[in-house]
Amino acid sequence: MTKIPTVPPSGFRDFSPDESAARQELMETIAKIYRTHGFQGISMSALENLSTLQGKGGGTDNEKLIFKVMKRGEQLEKALQSQSEIADLGLRFDLTLPLARYYANSQSTLPRPFKVFQMGSVWRADRPQKGRYREFTQCDVDILGSKEIGAEADAISAIVEVFHHYGLEGVEVHINDRRLLAKWGESLMVAPDVWAQVLVVLDKLDKIAVDGVCKELFEKNLLNSDQQKKFETLLRAAENAKAEDFQSLDTESVGSMLELVSLLNDYKKLGTKIVFNPTLVRGQDYYTGTIFELRHASLAGSLAGGGRYNRLLEIFGTQDTPAFGGSIGFERLYLLLLEQGKLGASTLAPQVFFPLFEASLRGKVSSLAASLRRKGIRADVFPDAAKLKNQFKYAGERKIPYVASLGGDELAKGIVKLKTMSSGEEKEIAFTDFENEMEKLCKA
Amino acid sequence: MTKIPTVPPSGFRDFSPDESAARQELMETIAKIYRTHGFQGISMSALENLSTLQGKGGGTDNEKLIFKVMKRGEQLEKALQSQSEIADLGLRFDLTLPLARYYANSQSTLPRPFKVFQMGSVWRADRPQKGRYREFTQCDVDILGSKEIGAEADAISAIVEVFHHYGLEGVEVHINDRRLLAKWGESLMVAPDVWAQVLVVLDKLDKIAVDGVCKELFEKNLLNSDQQKKFETLLRAAENAKAEDFQSLDTESVGSMLELVSLLNDYKKLGTKIVFNPTLVRGQDYYTGTIFELRHASLAGSLAGGGRYNRLLEIFGTQDTPAFGGSIGFERLYLLLLEQGKLGASTLAPQVFFPLFEASLRGKVSSLAASLRRKGIRADVFPDAAKLKNQFKYAGERKIPYVASLGGDELAKGIVKLKTMSSGEEKEIAFTDFENEMEKLCKA
Repeated sequence: MTKIPTVPPSGFRDFSPDESAARQELMETIAKIYRTHGFQGISMSALENLSTLQGKGGGTDNEKLIFKVMKRGEQLEKALQSQSEIADLGLRFDLTLPLARYYANSQSTLPRPFKVFQMGSVWRADRPQKGRYREFTQCDVDILGSKEIGAEADAISAIVEVFHHYGLEGVEVHINDRRLLAKWGESLMVAPDVWAQVLVVLDKLDKIAVDGVCKELFEKNLLNSDQQKKFETLLRAAENAKAEDFQSLDTESVGSMLELVSLLNDYKKLGTKIVFNPTLVRGQDYYTGTIFELRHASLAGSLAGGGRYNRLLEIFGTQDTPAFGGSIGFERLYLLLLEQGKLGASTLAPQVFFPLFEASLRGKVSSLAASLRRKGIRADVFPDAAKLKNQFKYAGERKIPYVASLGGDELAKGIVKLKTMSSGEEKEIAFTDFENEMEKLCKA
Repeated sequence: MTKIPTVPPSGFRDFSPDESAARQELMETIAKIYRTHGFQGISMSALENLSTLQGKGGGTDNEKLIFKVMKRGEQLEKALQSQSEIADLGLRFDLTLPLARYYANSQSTLPRPFKVFQMGSVWRADRPQKGRYREFTQCDVDILGSKEIGAEADAISAIVEVFHHYGLEGVEVHINDRRLLAKWGESLMVAPDVWAQVLVVLDKLDKIAVDGVCKELFEKNLLNSDQQKKFETLLRAAENAKAEDFQSLDTESVGSMLELVSLLNDYKKLGTKIVFNPTLVRGQDYYTGTIFELRHASLAGSLAGGGRYNRLLEIFGTQDTPAFGGSIGFERLYLLLLEQGKLGASTLAPQVFFPLFEASLRGKVSSLAASLRRKGIRADVFPDAAKLKNQFKYAGERKIPYVASLGGDELAKGIVKLKTMSSGEEKEIAFTDFENEMEKLCKA
């Protein structure tokens, strides 16, 4: 018999008690901040019909990322015999597509605009590598049914506020607009389909720098020599460009970016840089306007990002629903905060430990613990009348600050012996005072 | 083009903002109560290697419940060509098996006993029906590495406390022991494999009553006429039986049940019935000792349940790790609490609403809202300078108690006009006082 593996599948993770507590703490903080910005939480099913995930017809990049779930029973047998599609369901690879589906289905019961947040796992059949997992958490905010720049300001504020809350210095908000990128292509007289390929290369700027982008474009022969030259000039100038310099390309999008920068002015004062970045592309092909990304000097890639997707809901038959949304890269933020020691000061460990001196005392110990627990005090009882050495080792490992001992002698005297582990100090507390005394100590 | 479906797949659910808030509230309450009992949270990956889920070799009842995930890329092609296994991963169908795997992998870093809770989705490829979903939430507590009845008392207390917290009356805790059931079979001289089949029928007692069980056993011809007669007699007597009546069958298990009942005595005083139920079976075949179930008069089936599984960890090579655990049927508890109006008094809606009278005021309104948000006040800003009628409709739908209006006149006067929606009362508040005034109103 082969031994059953005890590690999670490749690219998947288990979270230890400490990790789970820290992740939970971060999720609750993010949810709270999203709520202060007026967003309401929803949660969608983890599985979608495969046809929903494949959107207009499959074959897209996302298609490759889907974990497909096999049909079951008769349906599976039929599919295998007829060599037709074996899968009928798939795990969601993001939270945006399920949101669009849900909105299409429920919009008559929802306020307009619909200001919503989602926090949950998504699954991607990527090749696992360091820092890239096949199951990871996303924290999205979206405003559906709003067309003005106020939506951008509100959603981006909610996201930036999370970073501000943790006092993360050196965060930069990069802003661009897909419409401006399109105009840039038009100004070079590049056909839209070719320009889309150019943008795929430009999207790698972070990784391969300006020279790398120019080289790859040259090799791919996407532009003629005149276009290539003009593109390179603008690209090299872009690093220090101001939005105003691009006004001639597209008054409208540059105007809205300038307004957005001014609406986020508050964060500038607080030390967060708001940057117009004409080379920002973002991967998703459904963006139609503003796009943004949060970056931090100590990390490659982005900490958060998103954009306006005014047409996405049309694939579900929902007309006239402009939308804007963004997402915090939970896993990266979590690692950054851990590194900086800003998470995990968790206060969720038990506060009092009751060793069990002998089995016959179990009833009395249980009821003392129960009385504390009902006061909201986290009280832990050792379940077995095991060696005391092992019981105290356990209390030490769980870092429980108070140990409440009740042996036969204490029972006879009607007291509990309470030891404060940090100081080693011991005192005797009468049963009748115990609840109140512990409440004072634990809630202080 | 076929329209992309907008409903979730059959058996799956989306949760609206109200539902999500109520579910979140219940989950947080359960987690908090589990923590007061000294349990620590962990979370496991949603997907497992198929071999882990199939356990010793597949073909079990659980096997049919697994949503299987197809291999990808080359691996899939190879599998299809060679007609070998097409799936390599599966969605977890419970939280116990992943826990056992995790413990086997991590026990050297974990305290002993390991008192742990998990709350998360599980997925079962069941036929969907009313009240039975293919994705649902489980809330498990487990104590690994403890052999004494203190573990049972601690875990069951944590679960019962949740029901007690919500003031749910009429909850009954049914307790039995797999060892006693085995002795019952032995006393009738029924072979263990036949007795296992008898127990499968007995497990339906809730649904088909005593007559139904007797009839099915007779039809299946599992027992000889003498055994059938004795079984029926004991079954009919069981309803009013006391544990003491069964002492002759098995002193040990009856003794431990009597101790458990006495340890849960606290809940008896609080109005929860603690019931010895010699006909309780519970489905899982890995139970080895105590089993329990929480029932409520107004519901068929159980609200929570669990048992001792001293051998389960051996399938992952972990020796000498007796364990006990239980699980709250989250979906049923949620429905019961909703019905009784004990959930959803959610306080998560925005507290202040800022309509946007004209686009030029966006900056000022945003910064007023930002100042409140940093104080932890939930403030919502309308993102578009839309028709005021629509803006107020929105505020009404979201039941926002205060509306803070800032038009051109107010800006000139340096004030905000604040309307209390419940009374219709309006007052003017100077910008400089606004933050403090709102803090007083919203935190009161």
